[in-house]
Amino acid sequence: MKRPSLVQTHYLTVQDVAAIVNKIGAAATLSRMADYIHEDYLRWQDFDKCARVASHSAGGVIELMPIADAKTYAFKYVNGHPKNTFAGLPTVMAFGVLADVDTGFPELLSELTLTTALRTAAMSAVAARALARPHSKSMALIGNGAQSEFQALAFHHLLGIEEIRLFDIDRAATRKLIGNLQHTALRLIVCGSIAEAVRGADIVTTVTADKTNAAILTPDLIEPGMHINGVGGDCPGKTELHADVLRGATVFVQYEPQTRIEGDLQQLPADFAVTELWQVLRAQAPGRTSDAQVTVFDSVGFALEDYSALRFLRDAASQLGIGQWVSLIPELADPKDLFSLIRPALDSPASASPRAARAGAVSGANIKKRALAA
Amino acid sequence: MKRPSLVQTHYLTVQDVAAIVNKIGAAATLSRMADYIHEDYLRWQDFDKCARVASHSAGGVIELMPIADAKTYAFKYVNGHPKNTFAGLPTVMAFGVLADVDTGFPELLSELTLTTALRTAAMSAVAARALARPHSKSMALIGNGAQSEFQALAFHHLLGIEEIRLFDIDRAATRKLIGNLQHTALRLIVCGSIAEAVRGADIVTTVTADKTNAAILTPDLIEPGMHINGVGGDCPGKTELHADVLRGATVFVQYEPQTRIEGDLQQLPADFAVTELWQVLRAQAPGRTSDAQVTVFDSVGFALEDYSALRFLRDAASQLGIGQWVSLIPELADPKDLFSLIRPALDSPASASPRAARAGAVSGANIKKRALAA
Repeated sequence: MKRPSLVQTHYLTVQDVAAIVNKIGAAATLSRMADYIHEDYLRWQDFDKCARVASHSAGGVIELMPIADAKTYAFKYVNGHPKNTFAGLPTVMAFGVLADVDTGFPELLSELTLTTALRTAAMSAVAARALARPHSKSMALIGNGAQSEFQALAFHHLLGIEEIRLFDIDRAATRKLIGNLQHTALRLIVCGSIAEAVRGADIVTTVTADKTNAAILTPDLIEPGMHINGVGGDCPGKTELHADVLRGATVFVQYEPQTRIEGDLQQLPADFAVTELWQVLRAQAPGRTSDAQVTVFDSVGFALEDYSALRFLRDAASQLGIGQWVSLIPELADPKDLFSLIRPALDSPASASPRAARAGAVSGANIKKRALAA
Repeated sequence: MKRPSLVQTHYLTVQDVAAIVNKIGAAATLSRMADYIHEDYLRWQDFDKCARVASHSAGGVIELMPIADAKTYAFKYVNGHPKNTFAGLPTVMAFGVLADVDTGFPELLSELTLTTALRTAAMSAVAARALARPHSKSMALIGNGAQSEFQALAFHHLLGIEEIRLFDIDRAATRKLIGNLQHTALRLIVCGSIAEAVRGADIVTTVTADKTNAAILTPDLIEPGMHINGVGGDCPGKTELHADVLRGATVFVQYEPQTRIEGDLQQLPADFAVTELWQVLRAQAPGRTSDAQVTVFDSVGFALEDYSALRFLRDAASQLGIGQWVSLIPELADPKDLFSLIRPALDSPASASPRAARAGAVSGANIKKRALAA
C-alpha cells in the first residue's frame, strides 16, 4: 500500500486486524507473530527500553508502553479493568502506533486489543519452546476469559499441545472457550478445581483477571518438570503464584526492571535471581537444565512484543492491502506555516478587537447554528 | 454528540480541529483554552503527574505525556525534529487521547499538532497574565516558525499586546508570519537582530527550534521589568537562555521535576530556587513583586495543558457536532469472547494440523488471491 500523501497515517480498525487474521489463518498468524517476537528478542541490545508508565486507580490501571530501536519507535496504550465485563466492556483494551525515529512521523495506528491477546499467546509460546520439556502434550489453563483461546491455540500449534485441562470460577467462560475451540484437534477437559486441572499437566498457564494478590498456584500443586506460564499477574497488587512456587522454580522474565514491579516476582526480595529470556534465546544463559526442573515464565507483557506485533501487522496489512488512511498529522504546503490551517479564524468577528473576543465567538457560533436550522 | 455504541471512539482529524477553531474564532479559542488551563492549574493537587517519557535520537525526540485525575486520563504523543521542515514535515507533530479512568475506555482521539500550538500559546498567556507587568504593550518574538503566530495572537488578545518585534534567522519565516497576521490590529515590526527586537520590549518570547544549547538571550539584552516567555528550550541539550539570564531573574515553571530535566533550568544546579506556576495562580506564592523585577516563565510543555486542551476539544466538538466515530476498540456481545472476532480463522486450512500451519496459510492466501483475479 502506497501512502497517498506524506502525512497520512495507515490505520487498522478492529475489523481490519480481524480480517488479517481471518485471511492468514489463526495458526499461521500466531506462528508468524512468534517469529517476529523471537527475531526482535535476538536483537535485545538494539532497543531503548523502559518499564511501562502506569496510572493506577481503584478499578484498574492505564499504561503506556514505549520502545524504540534506531529506526522504529512503537508504543501501546493499554488498560486493565477486571470489572469492565460487568459493564459490557473488555477487561483489556489497547491500541498503538509505529513511528519513524528519523522524523517522529506516526506511520501506523492500529487497534491492539485483539492483537494483545495474539501477541501475549505468541510470546508465551516463544518462552515455552525454550523452557518447557520437549514433547509436552498436556496443558492446564486456569482462567478461561478473553485471552484463553489464544493461549490454547498457540500452545497447540507452536508446541504440539494436544490436551487442555480447563478451569475457571466462571463456568460460562469455560463453556464459551469450548464453544470456540470444539472443532479443533484439541482435547478439551473441563476440571472441577485448579488442583484437578493442574494434576499431570506438562505446562500450566494461569491467565486470570482479578486485581488482587491471589494464590492460584500453591507449592503442593506443582509437579517436577512442570513449566508454568504465568500470564495474569502483571501489575502491583495483582499476582497469581504463591511466592513459594517461585522460590521452588527457576524464574525467567522479559525485562527484569519491569517484572520486579509488576510480575509475580513483586513478592520476592530484589536479590532473588531471575534470567531474562533473551539471554536464553541467544544461548547466553541456560534455560531448562533437567527434566525434573520446574520453570516459570513470569510474563507481564513487555513493549517489545507490541513492537513485534505492530511490525507484523504493518507487513501483513501492506501485503494484503488492508486498512485505511487517516489525517492525524496536518498536510502543509510550508511546514512552518501551521497557522495557515486556521487563517480563516482571523476573519471571524471574534478577532476584531481583543475585548470582543468571547462575545463575538458565541454570536458567530449562533449565526452558523441558525443558518443550519433555516 | 451521542456515542453510537459503547465502544466507538470520538475522533477529531486535523481538519476537524481547524473547523472548530474557524467556527469559534482564533481569539475566542485561545481565550477559552486559557480558561480551561487556568481552571485545571487551580486544582493541581488533583492530578497524578510525572515527567514525560522521552525517547531521544540523533535527529530529535519522541515523547509520551500522560496525566490523570480521578475521572479522566489523558496522554499526548509528540515529537520534536528540527530538521523535519527540510523534508516537508512539521517540526512538531502530535496526537492524543482522553480516557475514562473508571474503565480505561479511550473516549476521544484527536490530532494535537495544531492544538499543541494553540495550547502552548494559551499556557504562555496564562503565565504572563500572572507574571508580566500590567499594561505590557510590546513583545519581542524571537523565532517566527510554526508556533509564532499563535503566541502573537494569544498575547494580543489575552494580554493586550499591541506591537510585536520580530526576528528570525530565516527571513522567509518572518515574511510568512507577516502574511498571516497583517490584517490584525497588531503592529508588526521586523528587526535586524535579536538585540534590536528585544530593546524596549515589555515581554520577550523565544520560540526557536534548534536542538542545541543556544544563547538566544544574553544578560546584556535584558532590561529591568521584562517578562521572558521561554518556549523553545524544552529538552536536554536544547536551551535558549544564557544561564546568567536565569540567575538574574525570578524563575517560574510548570512542573519542577520535568523542567529541571528539560527546561533552560537544566543549566543550573538542582538547588536553584524556582516557583511552580500553580502556586502563583492559587496565590500561595508571590508572582511578580516589583516593576523592576525580571521574570522568566521557563515553559517546557506539560501534560496538564494537553489534558485541558483535550477537554476543551471534547466540549467544543460535542457542542458543534464535529468529528467522526472510529472502531479502535472491539464491540463484543460477550466481552469475555474476544476470540469470536477471529473464529472464522479456525476454518482456514492452516488450522487443520499443527505441522501444516504455515504452508496451509500461504496456500489459503493464494486461493483467495486467485479467486480475486478470476
